[in-house]
Amino acid sequence: MEESVLSAVRKIDIRFSEVDSMHVVWHGNYAKYFEDAREAFGEKYGLDYLTIYGNGYFAPLVELTFKYKRPLRYGDRAEIRIFYRPTEAAKLVFDYEITDLESGEVVLTGHSVQVFMEKESYQMVWGNPEFFEAWKRKWGMMP
Amino acid sequence: MEESVLSAVRKIDIRFSEVDSMHVVWHGNYAKYFEDAREAFGEKYGLDYLTIYGNGYFAPLVELTFKYKRPLRYGDRAEIRIFYRPTEAAKLVFDYEITDLESGEVVLTGHSVQVFMEKESYQMVWGNPEFFEAWKRKWGMMP
Amino acid sequence: MEESVLSAVRKIDIRFSEVDSMHVVWHGNYAKYFEDAREAFGEKYGLDYLTIYGNGYFAPLVELTFKYKRPLRYGDRAEIRIFYRPTEAAKLVFDYEITDLESGEVVLTGHSVQVFMEKESYQMVWGNPEFFEAWKRKWGMMP
Amino acid sequence: MEESVLSAVRKIDIRFSEVDSMHVVWHGNYAKYFEDAREAFGEKYGLDYLTIYGNGYFAPLVELTFKYKRPLRYGDRAEIRIFYRPTEAAKLVFDYEITDLESGEVVLTGHSVQVFMEKESYQMVWGNPEFFEAWKRKWGMMP
Repeated sequence: MEESVLSAVRKIDIRFSEVDSMHVVWHGNYAKYFEDAREAFGEKYGLDYLTIYGNGYFAPLVELTFKYKRPLRYGDRAEIRIFYRPTEAAKLVFDYEITDLESGEVVLTGHSVQVFMEKESYQMVWGNPEFFEAWKRKWGMMP
Repeated sequence: MEESVLSAVRKIDIRFSEVDSMHVVWHGNYAKYFEDAREAFGEKYGLDYLTIYGNGYFAPLVELTFKYKRPLRYGDRAEIRIFYRPTEAAKLVFDYEITDLESGEVVLTGHSVQVFMEKESYQMVWGNPEFFEAWKRKWGMMP
Repeated sequence: MEESVLSAVRKIDIRFSEVDSMHVVWHGNYAKYFEDAREAFGEKYGLDYLTIYGNGYFAPLVELTFKYKRPLRYGDRAEIRIFYRPTEAAKLVFDYEITDLESGEVVLTGHSVQVFMEKESYQMVWGNPEFFEAWKRKWGMMP
Repeated sequence: MEESVLSAVRKIDIRFSEVDSMHVVWHGNYAKYFEDAREAFGEKYGLDYLTIYGNGYFAPLVELTFKYKRPLRYGDRAEIRIFYRPTEAAKLVFDYEITDLESGEVVLTGHSVQVFMEKESYQMVWGNPEFFEAWKRKWGMMP
């Protein structure tokens, strides 16, 4: 079966407090936009933070990358697109793309990897949690 | 017995990311400096966040006020001073004062009130928790 | 002419990163929700940050108050309402109210005062800037 | 001439507000610790933000990476170490390492790349700015 790409998109509302003294979004704030994108994805596909938590897990990041091509400024209209990257491992792997809606230009790309951790023991799990395997099956993301 | 004033002081390290596009510390970030001051106070007098938590409580804010007189800029050397305000109630009441060390000027004053909440039940307590009463007695803050 | 109340409302999207280890919105983050509310107001009535800036001014805060009645938690649906308080002075005075949409309860109230500062000189102005006087007239906010 | 490694170290003060509801430092906040490290490096070697700005430039990030091995918790004592990576290009390249001082364990590594941008024109420069070439020469970082 051919893999279809799961993705979601969300408008970015740039806050005044997210802009630094160079008049552009402070580079560290993109981590918040990525989080917003993961939540938009999670709400669309039933894999949001509270669902993961309700199943007994956290999904902490183990890897996070940003490639900044052009900065966003206060007042810019932009959107973030998130792409699920299928993997057999007990991991959540996403790619991100932020587009300036004025110019149509991609201004930032990124990547993140999350693992699963039992919320009681804070122990990382190596095998796919049951609920995640069911999720993968539902969306045709099993190998 | 005359009440002595309990107070603590701490240097402020202004982060680049705390400065907004007006080139001054974003007004919301002073809440972080206040928190730093409460921790400095807590470490000095044995009433830090982890001690309160270890005794079974949170101490959430119920009131917070800022009066901005002059903004701080990136690179300014400043310090924050925190003053404990004695009260019979089961409350933590503090005043704050931020001074620009260059000019000696007070650039911001503030005020906060915290209550005690049981960490398991999330219920607010109306009477002074035992550890807090002991703390008040130790520092001569009982009426 | 009787003064009508100018107000705006905006849904609050609580970010995971805005929640602290007590599982509630960290008290300092409400400053961001207030800013969002001011922008919602500004967009509705033509007094947003970029309009003020375009007219040659900043509008820094000189006073900010929060009264926390009940904390918001991650996943709560809430909204913030902002009310313009008319004044003859060259000031922007707002009241705020955050409501938990589940219970209908007001969980936080607040207040802010802003002044006008020339963006080139960083000098505070005591009289109403011309554009602000025109704005007051337009919305029936002149005495 | 053999290249010596330029590096700096700085204690990390974890703020309560930097900790998320999993009771660990929120992953996005490490960007602030990296910034603190760059400032510590800059102050030690004369390449801090205000010096770069005073020479007519910004140094925005074009790349930023985090590898999270173990989370930091509130109350942990930790330090961040920053290493300058020599390059002929008009770039600032740094590696980072955060160590938990209790266990001696490296809990996070990272990497960043910055370019130079003229502060007036917001144009990126391809050749080494004069002051940066002088800086490289001074510290034996010229090829």
